[in-house]
Amino acid sequence: MKVALFNEWQLGVVRDDRIYDIGASLFEERPPRDCPMVEFIKHYETFKPIAERLLADAPSYPIAEVRLRQPVSRPNKIVAAPVNYLSHKQEMNVLHTARGLGFFLKANSSMIGHGDRIVLPGVKAGRRIDHELELAFVIGRRAKNVKAEDAYRYIFGYTGLNDVSLRPDGEHEEERCLRKSFDTFTPVGPWIVTGDEIGDPQNLNMSLTVNGQVKQQVNTKYMICSIAELVEIFSHVMTLEPGDIIATGTPDGVGPIRPGDTVAITIERIGALANPVGEEIG
Amino acid sequence: MKVALFNEWQLGVVRDDRIYDIGASLFEERPPRDCPMVEFIKHYETFKPIAERLLADAPSYPIAEVRLRQPVSRPNKIVAAPVNYLSHKQEMNVLHTARGLGFFLKANSSMIGHGDRIVLPGVKAGRRIDHELELAFVIGRRAKNVKAEDAYRYIFGYTGLNDVSLRPDGEHEEERCLRKSFDTFTPVGPWIVTGDEIGDPQNLNMSLTVNGQVKQQVNTKYMICSIAELVEIFSHVMTLEPGDIIATGTPDGVGPIRPGDTVAITIERIGALANPVGEEIG
Repeated sequence: MKVALFNEWQLGVVRDDRIYDIGASLFEERPPRDCPMVEFIKHYETFKPIAERLLADAPSYPIAEVRLRQPVSRPNKIVAAPVNYLSHKQEMNVLHTARGLGFFLKANSSMIGHGDRIVLPGVKAGRRIDHELELAFVIGRRAKNVKAEDAYRYIFGYTGLNDVSLRPDGEHEEERCLRKSFDTFTPVGPWIVTGDEIGDPQNLNMSLTVNGQVKQQVNTKYMICSIAELVEIFSHVMTLEPGDIIATGTPDGVGPIRPGDTVAITIERIGALANPVGEEIG
Repeated sequence: MKVALFNEWQLGVVRDDRIYDIGASLFEERPPRDCPMVEFIKHYETFKPIAERLLADAPSYPIAEVRLRQPVSRPNKIVAAPVNYLSHKQEMNVLHTARGLGFFLKANSSMIGHGDRIVLPGVKAGRRIDHELELAFVIGRRAKNVKAEDAYRYIFGYTGLNDVSLRPDGEHEEERCLRKSFDTFTPVGPWIVTGDEIGDPQNLNMSLTVNGQVKQQVNTKYMICSIAELVEIFSHVMTLEPGDIIATGTPDGVGPIRPGDTVAITIERIGALANPVGEEIG
């Protein structure tokens, strides 16, 4: 199942080129006390057959005519693996291991959806800001001290994530958190594909283009720490909550984006997450 | 006004030694779609006089008989200034300026309330874990690109925060995000004191004790970046949302905590945030 948030944060299911607004019926009796996607994830086993039945009568719209939002409006947290492909590790001249580094967090307020504008901040004018192609996964149920072999039971689904990053430049060495948490620096989407439809998430081709030119391209089998290992490592530090977004790291080929560019991520069996780039005025 | 979350995340007002459960009446007609505290903060101007009227008839309990929770259950983010007192900067042998460093984020899942146990993680057994005394403030309305001179208009209130931290030890140099985001590593509370009752937040005495012994003691006037400057700096990176928690940095005297300890923060005009320390079993 492909699940999305769209327009006024309505919950929708994507089939072919249409999005079906199932949220209104699904939550009719019990309005969600949370982000509708988190609510859907928490009760997925119950909601899945209901959602499928609702498709026949739900109002639907051509995908191209709706505004897709980041598929979780407010996760408990966004966690990201800093250096998780050998090729990018060499490119960045990083000496430590991904395990040693652990992770960083991105602010919820940095998220945008497919089609939304990445805005280069005026306060960092002149600094290099890079795209970073990443597969992300979404937690399905509360996970604490989970072993890698059990990890997939805690994953709801998969989505694309562009981990837009202000580069340190020698003179400025801000913390990763700051460099990656500017407003609009976390495009996520276009939707979540549930685990049962993704096949093997460690064998997905993905690529990133800027203005149609391929800049990054990799298969997810080249991750240093697998998705299952990331669940183990992160869940030994923190309780992962339903709806938490985990970004799995970027391969080589990161490079600058500039106003007027369009940056697009395509991931096999997920789809395309495209965002124009603008700059802050004034 | 002193505002708290307690027991099953009920919204309460603290007067003298009692807590008044105003949430049930306040939200009777419109159940909150969010954390009740965030809802209260968003509509504070409207809710304040209603809350005061409700006190006369609201059910109330002795403070000592309720479980106080972290006063915001799920902020958009928790932001923290890494090194913001000269004394701690010298102690940590930090060369850069706080402005250069920026901030780090803490995971929502690391929060606990007054009286809850700080649990030292088994996965880091043998490593030093420190207390860090901090004044925190809570954002009152959406803030983006705010100037320091306007900053106080965006602050709802103030609370205590213990920024519990795994120390790097030379061999292990994990990112701040990880070292400070273990479950239970962010005690917050005991409640929020609104801006109109705090007086000058840059002139508050505060101290931290371990088992009754004073370990950290400072007046907030010794911050390197003032509260107003932090709002300016952070809001130029990110949109600060109502309920966001901003920790303002710790003074010198950070030191290890061990199972069996009780660590307590006392802040003038706010109150005391005390937490026992335990360790993860197995």
